[in-house]
Amino acid sequence: MEAVKEKTSATAYWQRYASIRQQTELICSPLRTEDYVAQPIVDVSPPKWHLGHTTWFFETFILIPHATNYHAFHPDYNYVFNSYYETVGARVLRTDRGNLSRPTTEEIYAYRKHVNAAMEALLLGDIDFPSSFWETLELGMQHEQQHQELLVTDIKYILGNNPLFPPYSDAIEHLQPVINTTDEWVNIPEGIYEIGHQGNGFCFDNELGVHNVFLHAYSVMNRYITNAEYMAFMEDGGYADFNHWLAEGWDWVKGNNVQAPMYWFNVDGGWQHYELNGLQPVDGNAPVKHISFFEADAFASWKGQRLLTEFEWEVASTQLKHGDLWEWTNSAYLPYPGFSKAPGAIGEYNGKFMINQMVLRGGSVASPSHHVRPTYRNFFHPHLRWQFTGIRLAEKN
Amino acid sequence: MEAVKEKTSATAYWQRYASIRQQTELICSPLRTEDYVAQPIVDVSPPKWHLGHTTWFFETFILIPHATNYHAFHPDYNYVFNSYYETVGARVLRTDRGNLSRPTTEEIYAYRKHVNAAMEALLLGDIDFPSSFWETLELGMQHEQQHQELLVTDIKYILGNNPLFPPYSDAIEHLQPVINTTDEWVNIPEGIYEIGHQGNGFCFDNELGVHNVFLHAYSVMNRYITNAEYMAFMEDGGYADFNHWLAEGWDWVKGNNVQAPMYWFNVDGGWQHYELNGLQPVDGNAPVKHISFFEADAFASWKGQRLLTEFEWEVASTQLKHGDLWEWTNSAYLPYPGFSKAPGAIGEYNGKFMINQMVLRGGSVASPSHHVRPTYRNFFHPHLRWQFTGIRLAEKN
Amino acid sequence: MEAVKEKTSATAYWQRYASIRQQTELICSPLRTEDYVAQPIVDVSPPKWHLGHTTWFFETFILIPHATNYHAFHPDYNYVFNSYYETVGARVLRTDRGNLSRPTTEEIYAYRKHVNAAMEALLLGDIDFPSSFWETLELGMQHEQQHQELLVTDIKYILGNNPLFPPYSDAIEHLQPVINTTDEWVNIPEGIYEIGHQGNGFCFDNELGVHNVFLHAYSVMNRYITNAEYMAFMEDGGYADFNHWLAEGWDWVKGNNVQAPMYWFNVDGGWQHYELNGLQPVDGNAPVKHISFFEADAFASWKGQRLLTEFEWEVASTQLKHGDLWEWTNSAYLPYPGFSKAPGAIGEYNGKFMINQMVLRGGSVASPSHHVRPTYRNFFHPHLRWQFTGIRLAEKN
Amino acid sequence: MEAVKEKTSATAYWQRYASIRQQTELICSPLRTEDYVAQPIVDVSPPKWHLGHTTWFFETFILIPHATNYHAFHPDYNYVFNSYYETVGARVLRTDRGNLSRPTTEEIYAYRKHVNAAMEALLLGDIDFPSSFWETLELGMQHEQQHQELLVTDIKYILGNNPLFPPYSDAIEHLQPVINTTDEWVNIPEGIYEIGHQGNGFCFDNELGVHNVFLHAYSVMNRYITNAEYMAFMEDGGYADFNHWLAEGWDWVKGNNVQAPMYWFNVDGGWQHYELNGLQPVDGNAPVKHISFFEADAFASWKGQRLLTEFEWEVASTQLKHGDLWEWTNSAYLPYPGFSKAPGAIGEYNGKFMINQMVLRGGSVASPSHHVRPTYRNFFHPHLRWQFTGIRLAEKN
Repeated sequence: MEAVKEKTSATAYWQRYASIRQQTELICSPLRTEDYVAQPIVDVSPPKWHLGHTTWFFETFILIPHATNYHAFHPDYNYVFNSYYETVGARVLRTDRGNLSRPTTEEIYAYRKHVNAAMEALLLGDIDFPSSFWETLELGMQHEQQHQELLVTDIKYILGNNPLFPPYSDAIEHLQPVINTTDEWVNIPEGIYEIGHQGNGFCFDNELGVHNVFLHAYSVMNRYITNAEYMAFMEDGGYADFNHWLAEGWDWVKGNNVQAPMYWFNVDGGWQHYELNGLQPVDGNAPVKHISFFEADAFASWKGQRLLTEFEWEVASTQLKHGDLWEWTNSAYLPYPGFSKAPGAIGEYNGKFMINQMVLRGGSVASPSHHVRPTYRNFFHPHLRWQFTGIRLAEKN
Repeated sequence: MEAVKEKTSATAYWQRYASIRQQTELICSPLRTEDYVAQPIVDVSPPKWHLGHTTWFFETFILIPHATNYHAFHPDYNYVFNSYYETVGARVLRTDRGNLSRPTTEEIYAYRKHVNAAMEALLLGDIDFPSSFWETLELGMQHEQQHQELLVTDIKYILGNNPLFPPYSDAIEHLQPVINTTDEWVNIPEGIYEIGHQGNGFCFDNELGVHNVFLHAYSVMNRYITNAEYMAFMEDGGYADFNHWLAEGWDWVKGNNVQAPMYWFNVDGGWQHYELNGLQPVDGNAPVKHISFFEADAFASWKGQRLLTEFEWEVASTQLKHGDLWEWTNSAYLPYPGFSKAPGAIGEYNGKFMINQMVLRGGSVASPSHHVRPTYRNFFHPHLRWQFTGIRLAEKN
Repeated sequence: MEAVKEKTSATAYWQRYASIRQQTELICSPLRTEDYVAQPIVDVSPPKWHLGHTTWFFETFILIPHATNYHAFHPDYNYVFNSYYETVGARVLRTDRGNLSRPTTEEIYAYRKHVNAAMEALLLGDIDFPSSFWETLELGMQHEQQHQELLVTDIKYILGNNPLFPPYSDAIEHLQPVINTTDEWVNIPEGIYEIGHQGNGFCFDNELGVHNVFLHAYSVMNRYITNAEYMAFMEDGGYADFNHWLAEGWDWVKGNNVQAPMYWFNVDGGWQHYELNGLQPVDGNAPVKHISFFEADAFASWKGQRLLTEFEWEVASTQLKHGDLWEWTNSAYLPYPGFSKAPGAIGEYNGKFMINQMVLRGGSVASPSHHVRPTYRNFFHPHLRWQFTGIRLAEKN
Repeated sequence: MEAVKEKTSATAYWQRYASIRQQTELICSPLRTEDYVAQPIVDVSPPKWHLGHTTWFFETFILIPHATNYHAFHPDYNYVFNSYYETVGARVLRTDRGNLSRPTTEEIYAYRKHVNAAMEALLLGDIDFPSSFWETLELGMQHEQQHQELLVTDIKYILGNNPLFPPYSDAIEHLQPVINTTDEWVNIPEGIYEIGHQGNGFCFDNELGVHNVFLHAYSVMNRYITNAEYMAFMEDGGYADFNHWLAEGWDWVKGNNVQAPMYWFNVDGGWQHYELNGLQPVDGNAPVKHISFFEADAFASWKGQRLLTEFEWEVASTQLKHGDLWEWTNSAYLPYPGFSKAPGAIGEYNGKFMINQMVLRGGSVASPSHHVRPTYRNFFHPHLRWQFTGIRLAEKN
């Protein structure tokens, strides 16, 4: 991650830390204890695991190395809450997280309290830490914000795949993507553009370094694709015509009998979808969401248009209304020129995933505020769709 | 199931019903809410599912057909809590049970209360039911007792496969199998013997009808095999020598890298095992338990002896100390002469499992008292070992 | 295997050996070179593997231990042609046999010639071998006959699953099962019967020892079930009604979309099946064949009758017309009382398969003449149906 | 595929066609009939399938639409030899190709002769075809050349995974990659470069259209990595240190217990590898080959250098000695700006594979002469290594 250039006061850090930590728990507040435990698919982690894992990050990378006399909350939590850091020892396999009834949610909240108290003492104490300390702290907060988004999407998966369709909350306006109603196209002229994160603010290592990219002229739609447009694709037999699909996408459609976006159910001939406030009729004017890369690409092909590259997206972003749905780009997640991962466990953060995943840009309603930047590179495998993902198209040139 | 010949008074039925229902909840009383949710392997069901499923049985087969004005607690619970009865409609796949965070444990306890109240009203009301009613009621109670045993074994699996090894309870003396310390052999002469359940008491359909079996003379040991004896097999390379194993057992050993009974861990060179009161050193004098059929058979082969057939076991049972561990027999689970399954959903109870499973006899410390009979036929696939299973040997003749 | 009590002259042995070896090659004579190579499923071995493996048996268990100065044909053939004998070293995994283009068929025929010549020299030489020698020789010949049957069934699978449906031969009358046209029932009174092989002739170890079994009275049909009868089951929705099926059978039907016996194809609304002379209309009067245990059991259930046990079959066999189709019994393949496997590699022959398989009795048109006895116990997993298997029913008592 | 601008004379086309067709059969000439049948892994097709499939291309896309009175050789060959063209109807699943013993090799050679004769009559006849005809013909020849390379690599896999390690041929000098012995670095200055195929010659659709790419300055090694260099990586524990590997690469190493390049065997402590002339000691000075993308990337990481992008490779190619080994680039296989697939079956050629594969550049000793261009984009999944793949590194900037 980028060095944090200007030192903020420790008090300000503590306040931001406390606010982020509180926000995580706020997201979980509507849950019943049982909801914290389930792991219905390997990509979805139990909420209580998220609560523990984000805490483990601060304990492992901040408190144990820097807080004198800190006592780890429990000797086995490193094993239980390590996610994928090979550097930091053995860990529970991702597929097994949902099998662990213990530690209980209550114990994990106590763990959070224990770590928060130690963090407060450390940050408000008489301190003089090197810049790497502040960088790790910043990374820990950014990391927790990433898990805030996963908490929302994982909770939606857990509840939305329950045959009882329990609502998460009635107040979900802030979690509903809004669409630009004007149908404009933004035109970008050909030229050399700078790509990558600039300035002193935080960014992840994968957003660095700044480099030039040549782009040919292109036009991009200044809104997301709507449910109505997507239903037209469905009604035209989009899921049944191999011509629109990548070969692996076609295998995915056939192998999983995919016929609609995730969370859609055909009830008495009409489409409903699970929303965080329960099963609802699909609104044709709202943007389509929970779409795999394969579906986004097939839709674009059917429409005679195409997805943007991540570079085209970044350059156009200042002129686009965005931030409500992650937008699949037709760029593979690969290193920028000069990319180099940090040494040690922190270096396992991004680089090792640079294969077989596609980049998404823009952020979503589930992203914490101020977390996402135009240079932010999100990435998932092309068949996944439990994130708040949507479609934006460019003219096929 | 066998017809219940003598009509007990309805009050007595109610009292027995209430006592069994209470016992189920007693077994769960040491659990934390999270423990009710997990399903670490397909064979293990979440405790809250057991609580709901046994209740669903009474609602579906007793209350809905017989209690006028009964209102089902929730319209979707039939879908959620049906286990395998194809007759009674769609159902949650067994592999998905652990993904359901709802209904919550609290809701399921309310469901139990609701059904219990309706059962009380029905049984203590002004009633005149046909004998089939009492048979179904009896079956429901026996069914709940079967799930009491599964609750114990499933809870042990959930806690015993957690890296924190949380104890279930400190008071587990009644769950510890006791061994006969005298080393006697019981000799049974050759002859024709009657096999199967006789008399008016309850039995399952698979214990009927009474039929003759010819047995050649045999000798059977009047105790279980001990941990010390089993460790001798292990130290002699028993898990590494294919000669002792059935071909499919050998594949199982290699494919799963099996090196000891379930729940055994080699800690600093010594064997410990997870017991319901936590991780404990293995006691050489206690009977070995949590053994697959493959292991029982391989041990017998190494010892130059053999397992009993279920018929030999039943005939010798009056002379054997038994009931603390299920004993693998070398009999496949198949119908007795004249076996015929009941019509309707109840008929799905036993007959359809009569393939690829081996019979176990005798009951275990986890079996409810008065639930198991000498004619009782338990059955599992040969690789399973999360039940309280042990080994008894016969002389190879 | 049973001791061969009366010593036949060595010349007679040689003649029988030569005749059996020739018969194996006769079965393969209609094949094209490519047909010798394929292994479409794990249960089906490439014909050239059968040719090599049966030869390897004589080389390994007769020539190498007994023929002075014998030189193994090729140092790696032990690895290539060992089937499952763990005692005799590493081996090609069963699933990989079809990947081996070498040794070529020509080389394997040369291998056969080499071993046959050495066998001739050995048997017609100046010899004085112990009885165990003759027993192993006998076993080798019986073993080759078993593979003759597998050659027929595996060739049928290879050709019958080719979209071109190439005929094996036009002259297949001897491979067509004949049905008893009279519809008689044979009645067997209750009593103690002797089961198992008696006398001095050859038998496999699993047919020993002779022991008593008590049978209750039963009636058995003196013919096989016909295609017309089976089609009635199909037309009555037999494959769509779970009530007739064992639970694992129902999973097999659903998981494999089974709708008819193996090799049946619905062509323009009528049923045809692949026969060894090509695709042919199904003859309603011929016995149904290529049936799994699951299907045989479901058919019996639908018919209100049942399968025989292997003991009932053996006792009734003298009064039954049989030998054209293997008959699934409702007996699991388990050891007889006093069963004991031979020491060394030969002992791996039968005993280690005594789990999860069902017994078939009677032999089939694909069995070599004089190979099968009434006490002969064949065994397969319940879902398999590429053997010439059929259905015979008993009255449900 | 690019339009063929200048019409070559039909005779010249015929001669080139005939020469390419003959070359395919020449590659197969050392094979035994059995070698034509096997399909040891899904990626490797049986040689006889390649022979038939390339012929099917000409029959389906040239003869049937254009040759009056042409009779298809066999009505079922479209089903058997269609590879993945969904447009052209049902087809044998790729995994089943090795199960088809028929058509025989002889029949397929007859098929080739039949099609060649019809092609000769068509091309040397009185013709006036549209340019699309010549484009399809060109594509058919390019397609057959691609299968020539696959024939070499698939034959190597079939023979090199046989425990007998049969040599393909003794004369394989032309199939041995040669290395540049001078250790030079080529420096490329930053700037805008044109990428993609230019001019009138043939190219595939994925090489179009020409577009600008901005490259920062870089340095690239003018030789392949040697076996000795790769062995240093192995000896340094390269396969045991997760730090060098992408996360999915690490899973691949662990899951398949990978410890060396494909075809390498440790014999008595020294490394040998299967070459097309049999098992040979590894020559430290020869370039390492049969390397997955994961291995190439891990090696680069260990070395502190990196792989090139496909754009960097293309720009530097005029200054590089290349063409003996396919070089993994760190570019995902994605469409160029303005890419558009052809309509109909031909359009299924390239575009639908543009996901989850990495680009390889440069050609190999197994590539037909004059088949590969500097703009040629080969692509495979990152774990595959049965092609003649090697490593070239760039300086990490």
